[in-house]
Amino acid sequence: MMSSRRKQSRSIAWVPTAPVGRPGARGVDADKPATQGTARANLASVQSGRHPLSNATENTRLFDYEQRTKAAFDAIVPTLKQISGLQHEADFERRAQALAQEQLGFALPATILADAWVTQLDMRRLFAWCVFQTYQRFCDDFFTNSFLSRLETEFQTFLIECGFHTLDISPCADGRLAHVISYVLRLPHKAVRRKSYAGAMFDIEDSIEKWTETELQRFREGIPTTADMPTRYMKTVVYHFSSSDPEHEGCAAHGSDAGRAAQGGLERLKAFQTAVENSFCCGASIDLMLIGLDTDNDTIRIHMPDRHGEIDLKRYLDAGDLYDATLSMQAAQAQEYVSEQVRQAGGEMSNGMQRLMGYLLVNNFSQIEYVRQYYDGRYRDIGHAERFIGAGIGFEEVQLRNLTYFAYMQTVEEAAADLDVGIKIFSKLNVSHGLPIPLVVRFDYHGQVPGARERAVGHCQRVDAALNDRYADLASNGLLHTLQVVRDCHAGGRIEVIGTSVMDEVTEEAH
Amino acid sequence: MMSSRRKQSRSIAWVPTAPVGRPGARGVDADKPATQGTARANLASVQSGRHPLSNATENTRLFDYEQRTKAAFDAIVPTLKQISGLQHEADFERRAQALAQEQLGFALPATILADAWVTQLDMRRLFAWCVFQTYQRFCDDFFTNSFLSRLETEFQTFLIECGFHTLDISPCADGRLAHVISYVLRLPHKAVRRKSYAGAMFDIEDSIEKWTETELQRFREGIPTTADMPTRYMKTVVYHFSSSDPEHEGCAAHGSDAGRAAQGGLERLKAFQTAVENSFCCGASIDLMLIGLDTDNDTIRIHMPDRHGEIDLKRYLDAGDLYDATLSMQAAQAQEYVSEQVRQAGGEMSNGMQRLMGYLLVNNFSQIEYVRQYYDGRYRDIGHAERFIGAGIGFEEVQLRNLTYFAYMQTVEEAAADLDVGIKIFSKLNVSHGLPIPLVVRFDYHGQVPGARERAVGHCQRVDAALNDRYADLASNGLLHTLQVVRDCHAGGRIEVIGTSVMDEVTEEAH
Repeated sequence: MMSSRRKQSRSIAWVPTAPVGRPGARGVDADKPATQGTARANLASVQSGRHPLSNATENTRLFDYEQRTKAAFDAIVPTLKQISGLQHEADFERRAQALAQEQLGFALPATILADAWVTQLDMRRLFAWCVFQTYQRFCDDFFTNSFLSRLETEFQTFLIECGFHTLDISPCADGRLAHVISYVLRLPHKAVRRKSYAGAMFDIEDSIEKWTETELQRFREGIPTTADMPTRYMKTVVYHFSSSDPEHEGCAAHGSDAGRAAQGGLERLKAFQTAVENSFCCGASIDLMLIGLDTDNDTIRIHMPDRHGEIDLKRYLDAGDLYDATLSMQAAQAQEYVSEQVRQAGGEMSNGMQRLMGYLLVNNFSQIEYVRQYYDGRYRDIGHAERFIGAGIGFEEVQLRNLTYFAYMQTVEEAAADLDVGIKIFSKLNVSHGLPIPLVVRFDYHGQVPGARERAVGHCQRVDAALNDRYADLASNGLLHTLQVVRDCHAGGRIEVIGTSVMDEVTEEAH
Repeated sequence: MMSSRRKQSRSIAWVPTAPVGRPGARGVDADKPATQGTARANLASVQSGRHPLSNATENTRLFDYEQRTKAAFDAIVPTLKQISGLQHEADFERRAQALAQEQLGFALPATILADAWVTQLDMRRLFAWCVFQTYQRFCDDFFTNSFLSRLETEFQTFLIECGFHTLDISPCADGRLAHVISYVLRLPHKAVRRKSYAGAMFDIEDSIEKWTETELQRFREGIPTTADMPTRYMKTVVYHFSSSDPEHEGCAAHGSDAGRAAQGGLERLKAFQTAVENSFCCGASIDLMLIGLDTDNDTIRIHMPDRHGEIDLKRYLDAGDLYDATLSMQAAQAQEYVSEQVRQAGGEMSNGMQRLMGYLLVNNFSQIEYVRQYYDGRYRDIGHAERFIGAGIGFEEVQLRNLTYFAYMQTVEEAAADLDVGIKIFSKLNVSHGLPIPLVVRFDYHGQVPGARERAVGHCQRVDAALNDRYADLASNGLLHTLQVVRDCHAGGRIEVIGTSVMDEVTEEAH
């Protein structure tokens, strides 16, 4: 893929030479009420110290990765603006290509540029083409270099010690939670199952299917634990809210109401547990965890049980409180403090459950510090700022905040509500500025299954047609562009581009 | 459900007093070439004897069930014709209701009749209403009385003795194969998994899911066999062809080409086998069987292995040939003859596989005789004559030939091709005569799973909306009517009507 680019791009920096936007946040808006989140931000700005349990080296690495990835996407608009200004000048094509190479790291499709003199440059197509090209480069980068690789085996061992053989997490599909595994919880993304749904309202039948598959593997192959080990399947929901603008920047699927979001997640969790208990005999069950995420500053809260051992919506441990309480302690003391808090709040919870909760809370300390250090304790983009929509099955590479609005889906028909939310978000973000919505249709497949690739390609084409049908007005005005990709997740290789609405030539030029 | 009807209907015969159509077939069209099928029919007509291995008692029972069920559907048109003739007469409503009660066994919705004087009777709505009412009575009948009950446990034991713990059959979705389990193969429908697809091109991922579920149940519960027993999962495809009009009345999905139909089925079987072998370790595999069905006379052929043990498209045993060869033998001798034929053709096949094949061939003898006895050896309706389309998941009650074009589906988006075939068939059968297409949307659910009923209802509504969208022209002209039903297959009860396009009152009046 991208042979011409690849020859050059390894010498050209993946980061554009003139990075755009983001860093050096201006702090909190003065006219917003000072909530817990902003208070913490102000506190952070006067503190130069680091938490003894945070991982500063990793933070540097993660920030570097986040910055250069987002900078690549955010360089597109300013570059195209410059190019737009040149379009009726002599030598336009050569100068445009030079600019693109310099600032984006790749050449633009010659045919789009060549047609500019007739009327004007088709900016919508060009913008979508650049987003898709950048997405593809981002994917290749991710699957070639392992920026986010963590010690999966080590974590898996720890998880089993805690009494769990699977950690299955359903966050909200909101782009502000796309980094929840690799950043917020600092978990190895390959060792965790992530399935995102609007409002974190995960599909119970899909989860039962995964549970069944997992159990069979334990019985047949003893992976990750043999069936006679009393380990359990852990299902976790991550709902979200905004501490500084709770009524507007919370979860759209739950009317920006943190209580409803938590309640919805808990009900779904319990329904899944009952489904497993009722569908399978011999004491089959699962364990549950409910986590809330403040998307302004990435602080998590983990809900604790009530006196009956049921998850309590009102009782939780806040990682931000724990961070502050332990900031001046020694590492061992801080660790013990957190463990003690979990123990006191945890009631009859198993030791393993307490260990896992303590682990996640401490992991989150690094992310709290990350936001304090690099974003002054509160993201500037507390609202939506996704760069594209991802729809389908896959997107393992999306581990960055506000990069992607992601809808896990098999069909447009079933996922229509989730997709509508995404289209609505991008209507504000892009369409209102005359820019199209870039939507990546993606289906991962297991290459060892005969015909699986052909079926994945078929899914892409079917979903693409259904999207163009559902959003016909946008599509016909050039305000919705799609890229179709598949990936053999068994082989673990790069993505493969199947087609795009942007132009026939994209595949020819890019591959 | 249907409280007013139920009070009366147990005394009123389910069969209309004046049965219409079907029986007393006029034999084969003289201008059609005499193929094997028709030759057999002619032979049959001169033979009064019965095969020693056929089940005459069961044939009588099955024919009775088929006749009265189809008669109930086929009484609708003549009854409505009579009613139509009365619509502008005095006392119309009373006379119409009397006719309906007498000939159909139920009352018509008063509101439709009452509006007739304004312009004329809305026959399309009335026809669809009657079909749905008859379908509902047919379902209630099926789930209340067990006309087709066979000894499941006995068959399950036999299957295990043959070395198989599951028999999973995918016939074509064509209505002429809807009776393949209960009639053609004489198997207990509850002990066999049936999933129909156009062209028998079953979904591999869906089958893998079922395989996984089955294996886990063996490991966890030892049902139907413990995991250490070397029994296997048997996947079977039933493709079809027409011996008397091979170029027109074969499988539409394969261009009415028997060779392509067999080839398509075989390829899908092998792909499923490879998928299981590649997706699971420790020698996981499945066994395969390929069956062809002559839909003119219900004779099956079972394909035999080639010298490498692979299913051979050209080598098969024809149940019709075996029937004829053994007709004058004693039962034990006939049985031995069939076994010997299978043994000779079977090569290296396991004894269990040979036993199962012999069993199916002999079971088919009863059906061959059924068609010879009641239909003069060849159905009059060798083409399509389905009464309604069934779409969704369920339809266990549909075990009759040419009653239902059935599309096993989750979404219209994925099943569009299968549905289009069904709509095309019914455009000829119904729309060309001005009658609407009656389509039942059905989702069975497992009542023990929390929220499963609500999700099934949601699926019905979503699919109903998608159908009305895809076939908007038909729907807006009253030429497509839908009935939405769900059923708790865990509880094993009746169907539950959710809604219908025919009229709001149907649920009120009918429940």
